[in-house]
This record gives sequence, C-alpha cells and structure tokens, in this order.
Amino acid sequence: MSTQHPRSAPAGASSAADPGGQQGVRAIEWRDGRLYLLDQRLLPGEERWLEVEDSDAAAKAIRELVVRGAPAIGITAAYAVVLAAARRYRESGKGWRDAIEPDLHALASARPTAVNLFWALDRMRRLFPDLDGDPEAALAREAERIHAEDVAANHRIGELGADLFTGAGAVITHCNTGSLATGGYGTALGVIRSAHARGLVTEVFACETRPWLQGARLTVWELQREGIPCRLITDSAAAALMRTGGVERVITGADRVAANGDVVNKIGTYALAVAARHHGIAFDVAAPVSTIDACVASGADVPIEERDPSEVLGYAGHAVAPGGTRAWNPVFDMTPAELVEALITERGVARPPNAETIRELLEADNGIG
Amino acid sequence: MSTQHPRSAPAGASSAADPGGQQGVRAIEWRDGRLYLLDQRLLPGEERWLEVEDSDAAAKAIRELVVRGAPAIGITAAYAVVLAAARRYRESGKGWRDAIEPDLHALASARPTAVNLFWALDRMRRLFPDLDGDPEAALAREAERIHAEDVAANHRIGELGADLFTGAGAVITHCNTGSLATGGYGTALGVIRSAHARGLVTEVFACETRPWLQGARLTVWELQREGIPCRLITDSAAAALMRTGGVERVITGADRVAANGDVVNKIGTYALAVAARHHGIAFDVAAPVSTIDACVASGADVPIEERDPSEVLGYAGHAVAPGGTRAWNPVFDMTPAELVEALITERGVARPPNAETIRELLEADNGIG
Repeated sequence: MSTQHPRSAPAGASSAADPGGQQGVRAIEWRDGRLYLLDQRLLPGEERWLEVEDSDAAAKAIRELVVRGAPAIGITAAYAVVLAAARRYRESGKGWRDAIEPDLHALASARPTAVNLFWALDRMRRLFPDLDGDPEAALAREAERIHAEDVAANHRIGELGADLFTGAGAVITHCNTGSLATGGYGTALGVIRSAHARGLVTEVFACETRPWLQGARLTVWELQREGIPCRLITDSAAAALMRTGGVERVITGADRVAANGDVVNKIGTYALAVAARHHGIAFDVAAPVSTIDACVASGADVPIEERDPSEVLGYAGHAVAPGGTRAWNPVFDMTPAELVEALITERGVARPPNAETIRELLEADNGIG
Repeated sequence: MSTQHPRSAPAGASSAADPGGQQGVRAIEWRDGRLYLLDQRLLPGEERWLEVEDSDAAAKAIRELVVRGAPAIGITAAYAVVLAAARRYRESGKGWRDAIEPDLHALASARPTAVNLFWALDRMRRLFPDLDGDPEAALAREAERIHAEDVAANHRIGELGADLFTGAGAVITHCNTGSLATGGYGTALGVIRSAHARGLVTEVFACETRPWLQGARLTVWELQREGIPCRLITDSAAAALMRTGGVERVITGADRVAANGDVVNKIGTYALAVAARHHGIAFDVAAPVSTIDACVASGADVPIEERDPSEVLGYAGHAVAPGGTRAWNPVFDMTPAELVEALITERGVARPPNAETIRELLEADNGIG
C-alpha cells in the first residue's frame, strides 16, 4: 500500500459506479486499473487516499479497517480480485486460475462476519471458467458492475425506507452506514438521506459507536457534508433519548442477515433494538440483498468477530484503563428477527423479516435496471 | 487547591471513618483540620492527592470531577462546611452563620443531580443554632460522623445485597460505585465485594461508562486492587452479554432515588435496566438512605445535569468528532421503579421499590450502631 498525497479524491478519478457524476463522498475509487481507498482510520482529521497495489494489501486494508462497512468490504474485495488476477496472469499465464487461489483465501480470511466479502468473491469467481486469455478487463468490468449496482441498490433502499416513515421526527442510527461504508450513498444513512430530502427527518442522533467510534468520526462527518442536522450521543444515551419521545425510528445497517431474518451488525445494534421495542419505536434494518446469507439458518450460526481488547482499553489510541485490564470486545452482535420491524433491501421490504419474507426477496427479480 | 506530591495517601492519614484501620482505597481524607482529595481525573495513570484549602476549592473540585459519586460528593461537602465555618469564624466571629451562607450556596450549586450533596449540607446546617464560639471542632466531628456512617452503611448494603444472589454468576455494573465514589467500600461495588467474598461472583463485567469512562478508569482499578476478576466492556455490549447467559444480575448505584422508587443514576443505567428486564435478569440498585429524596415524588422531577458537549466529542482533550459537531450530553438518566427489582439500603431492601416500601425504609430505625 502506498500513500497518496492527501486530497479529496485520486487525481482525475471518475467512478463507473456513478455515471451521472453526482457523487458525494466516496471511499473506493477504481481508475486505470488501480484501486484507491480513502483511509477511514484517519477520518475526520485527515483525508488521505491509499493506493492498494495488490490483493495482499487489499486484505490488509480490510483487516485493519482502512475500509469498513459490509458493502464497501465486498466492493474492495471484488477490485482486489482484479489486481490478483492481473498479477497471476502476468506471472503464470493461463495457470492464473490456480495461482490466484491463495489470494482469494487471504481475502476471504480478512474479516469473518460481513457476508458481502464472500458474496463478492463468489461472484467474481463465477466468471473464471468463461475467461480466455488476459482476465483483467473482464474482471474489472464485473467489479465495476458490483460497485455500480451497490450504489443503485442504495438509492432504491433509500426510497423504500423513506416510504416507511409515519411522520417527521428524529432518527437514531448506529455506526456508519453511509457512502463510506458502501459503494456510495449508504444503506441506513441512505434511508436517512432520502427521508430527509422528503422533509421527514428533523434531526439525526448518531451513536458514537464504541470502540471504534464510526459514528463520531464518520457518520457525523458525512451528515455535515450533506447538511443534515445531527447530534452525537454516547451509545448508552440512546435508550434515555427514546424515553423522551420524538424519536420516529431507529435505523441501522447489517453485516449479515440470516435466512430467518436475524441481523448481525455492529456491537450495540442489539441494545438499540431491545430499547426500541421497549419504547414501541420502530427498529428498521437497511441492507442490500447481497448481505442476506441464505446458507445460515439463523443469526446464532454467524461467526461474531472479536477484536483485540486494546480497542476497548483506550479511546482513540489513548489508553485509559489500568495496565493488565482484560476486556471482552465482540465487534458485532445478533438481533433476533422478531425485534426488527422491517428489513429494507433494493428488492423490497421484508416486513416483518422472517424465513418466508426473506425467501420472497431472494426469489424476486432484481429491481435495479 | 494545592497539589500534594503523589503518594498513596496524605502523610500519616488515619480516617475517623475506619477506626479498625482496615481501609483499602480511599478518595477523601480529613487530617488535622485539612481536607485531601484523590484527584480522580488523573486515575488510573497517576495517584495525586490535592489539598482542598477552602469551600470554594471544594465546590470547584466537585464541579470538575476531582471527586465524584453521590456519597463522596456529600462527604466532601460536609468537610467543606467545616473549612468554610472555620474561616468565617476567623473573619467574622459570631457573625459566621450569616457569612457562611454564600459558601453553602456555592457548594449546593456545584452539581445538580446527586441529592447527597444537599442532604449533607442540610445535616451540617442543622447543627449551627446549637454551636457556641468557634464552630470548627463540633462541625468536624459531625462531618467525620457522616463519613464514618457512610462506610458503615456501605458494609451493611454489601451484606444485604449479597443476600439477594440466587447463585454464583457474572455481574454487570456501571460507572464507579466503589471506595472512590463513597466514604469507602462502595455501594453497588460494595455488594459485589461482599458477594465475591461469599463465592457468588465469578466475574465482574464493568461497563466503560462513556463519556467520562469511570468504569474503565476507576472500577477496573479498584477491582484489580481487590483481586476480583473483571473484564471491561463497552456500554453497548452489555445487552449482547446478557443474551449469552451466565449473568446473575446487574447492579448499579444511584445519584438520587425519588419517593416512588424511580432511580436517577449515571447515563446508561436506564439502558441496562431495560435490557435486564428484556432478558429476565435482576436489576438492583444499591444506595444509602441519604440518596433517597422524599421531596421528589417521581424521577421526572429530578434535574438531569447536562455537561459540556465536548465530553462526548472526544476524550481527555483528544477530539475525534469533526469540528462543529453538536452533541447531547446528559450525564444521568432516570430508571422507572418498575424496572428495579430491589433497592438495597443500609436500612433494608425495598423489593420492589415503590412509594410504600420507600416510606417504610425512611421510617425505619437506622440499623447502623
């Protein structure tokens, strides 16, 4: 990974994912066969783009949270397959399909919970048998399609999610599910954008999202750029906020949705869902169909990543707990489907999400032209 | 306020509150007419004692969280009255009772939520009419009694709270309610200590308690010194932890308990109570009777302190949110009595807490010899 000079985007970047050119914040750029990632570890203090030189560097970037968010991880992995295939073809000629296997394995091992990673790798791999000669161009087109489809899906999710609002009010959201977490626009934050454009969002309360503070660092930053009113809260203040009234709904994204509608998402999502239910407030989840994993029957079967305890022992790199402190640091949790009012996807809304409504979604035509 | 050299306690300190001399951690020391506070803003990195030279400095120390925790604030205020009375008597002779009024007002204004502050000032003031000549010695004896009674109350609370355990298991606690938050031993942490001594606590999960991180900085530090197994969690992980099973109960302290049993305590307490109810886990509150405010009918009447948004935008001067971020920073929340299984006081357990059981507690004899 090499460091680019800080700038708002790689020079001359134009994204296949946004042919209309109306893109706002983007975190992933593919340009002339090169992959660039906005380093989300440094936001909001610094906007620095990294060039990802090969698939090993892409796996490292995923593992170390340069790029995060389930859809964004999937898109990054797709582009990484292009880099890997180009290199293996240069090295091994038509033997590239065997030579690329360790690259695919390394990418798949980068993070365990978000299913979009595996989904994107599978989709890229499905092209392999039909490719003749240099695979780079065809794979690059497929990765760009994945990227563009994600942006289109987010816009559709935004409209469908906004349709669920029963009136104007405040919205609570968790982690970052915006342009930074996706190909562009966002899932839960996409719904908030679409609803705000319709005058339905008076204010967003962004949970700071310990331990990595995606809410404080990324969501607030995105909402400021969008001109959407926002206040930051500690994660534990959300329940007290719900009690004060005025909260229209709680909306989060998902890292994996099981076949029965159980939702695995950023740690703290479950606490929000429990509190929303206690207060009779709608709890919605917004995610593309690629986040649904039909192969896991329930959320109990999804591996929950536990990261280094040091993430909890300090705050933004500043240690606060005494030496020798032990911590429990699961970075995702599981919300049972019965606590979710609606699962909003680009193919429609599963409301309530359960085995039947999820199956209907998976069997529906992709509504994206 | 002058800074003492770092040390484990003021030289030669021996506390009237612990005549047996078996004291562990202490945060408040009164010695030869001088008040010393362990600066809790610096823990666990540094153990520095401050000498509090007058009641203005005490009010500042309370406001700026040098000392925190409802009982500890009350004890500090009692000693501050001694300092104020001694000074006003030197300056104004028998006019000290009038001259001290601005000092009492400044102390009462330091923080709005914890009722122990007002309770301690009232108790000290009740002595004023009967004092002849120099009031210092008599007031010092009363402040030391308040301090000693708090320690004794905590030990009694610990035993009564441990009696509620239905078996050995993990305990979740919030904020810091230990020796640092009280005259010594602790309220919720006192229950945990007593229960651990009986083999009933397999492990403590300490919520880090954003934004001020009392759990990470203070509770973990105390539990390490007590040799009680402990793991730190983010506040938002508590609900997910409850879902995994093995949590025997959740125990917190209180800053004020209303006449109907509603509990006002550190932000995040309400979220824990809601999650505990959802999982069928007992949620207990441990607090001395001095924390009950019979003058407020319900928790809705208790002022909730909102502190500077900067506390949420970063930690210890290290900002993480973008410039211009707005935040909502209530530092307490209100848990309705119906979510509390038991209110544990030194006079007995209100189970469930409600207007009747609270009234019985207030009318009971003080069980402390």
